[in-house]
Amino acid sequence: MSTSSTAADPLSALDWSVDNCTLGRAMAILGERWTVVVLREIFLGVRRFADIQEHAGVPRQVLTNRLARLVEQGVLRRVPYQSEGARTRHEYRLTDMGLELQPVLIAITRWGDRHLADPDGSPREFAHRDCGEPVHVELRCAQDHRVGDREVTSRPGPGAHARVRASR
Amino acid sequence: MSTSSTAADPLSALDWSVDNCTLGRAMAILGERWTVVVLREIFLGVRRFADIQEHAGVPRQVLTNRLARLVEQGVLRRVPYQSEGARTRHEYRLTDMGLELQPVLIAITRWGDRHLADPDGSPREFAHRDCGEPVHVELRCAQDHRVGDREVTSRPGPGAHARVRASR
Repeated sequence: MSTSSTAADPLSALDWSVDNCTLGRAMAILGERWTVVVLREIFLGVRRFADIQEHAGVPRQVLTNRLARLVEQGVLRRVPYQSEGARTRHEYRLTDMGLELQPVLIAITRWGDRHLADPDGSPREFAHRDCGEPVHVELRCAQDHRVGDREVTSRPGPGAHARVRASR
Repeated sequence: MSTSSTAADPLSALDWSVDNCTLGRAMAILGERWTVVVLREIFLGVRRFADIQEHAGVPRQVLTNRLARLVEQGVLRRVPYQSEGARTRHEYRLTDMGLELQPVLIAITRWGDRHLADPDGSPREFAHRDCGEPVHVELRCAQDHRVGDREVTSRPGPGAHARVRASR
């Protein structure tokens, strides 16, 4: 994901449209701090409205909106539950689409761990359920090479559209 | 990153404080759509104010703010350049901290590609510079096992603080 024109793509990045950019669309779902905080809670197993509100300190109305949007967008689903003697309530679980955000949340957290942690370290760590070892995110290519952050390039994909450039 | 109490952590996720959550801190930097769009441009090699503004359609004032914040937070640095006969201007480059967002942006984009692309596919794809093969993000543990999205658990890290629970 770098630099303008290469042999693979003689046009500059500027020549391609970003109207159908899937990063942009993904961030229209995620691109707001509380949305990801709500997802963090649900990944942690905190699935009930009152618990999320109290644990994460999300304002009530914000939480109502974010949960409704995440359900609408297919990231979460509402599942009814009933505590003894109480009326039916709902908890929120990840759909498959939501569960596939696991690498996104881990990548963000690991970056935060490296650059934004307190001196005593990160408050939470991820582990492989089977062996207990810490989990991290890696870039790999289809040939299974490990790919460094500087070894990534980008090129137009199948949905690339040339764009009409505004004259300046 | 899942479920409440396990053998490794007899307390519930609710018992731990999120005040020093590094995901929360990372999203305080990234948690807004335009910030990530600006980073996308810079990763693509679009580094100049006017180019970013025109290519990504970021409103001028928003772009000014986002760039200033990203520089302040250590994600970008301003580098002067001079076109022939023009006054000195600045372009924006990734710092090391910024470059380490590569896996985050790729993870988000790949998730968007899977769930939010148009029928003709993603407009942009990532490739390994050396071999040209497509790049994706993988979860791996310290024993180098591939870790599935459902095989991740989380536990308190070195910086975990028990929290004072509000009484309900």
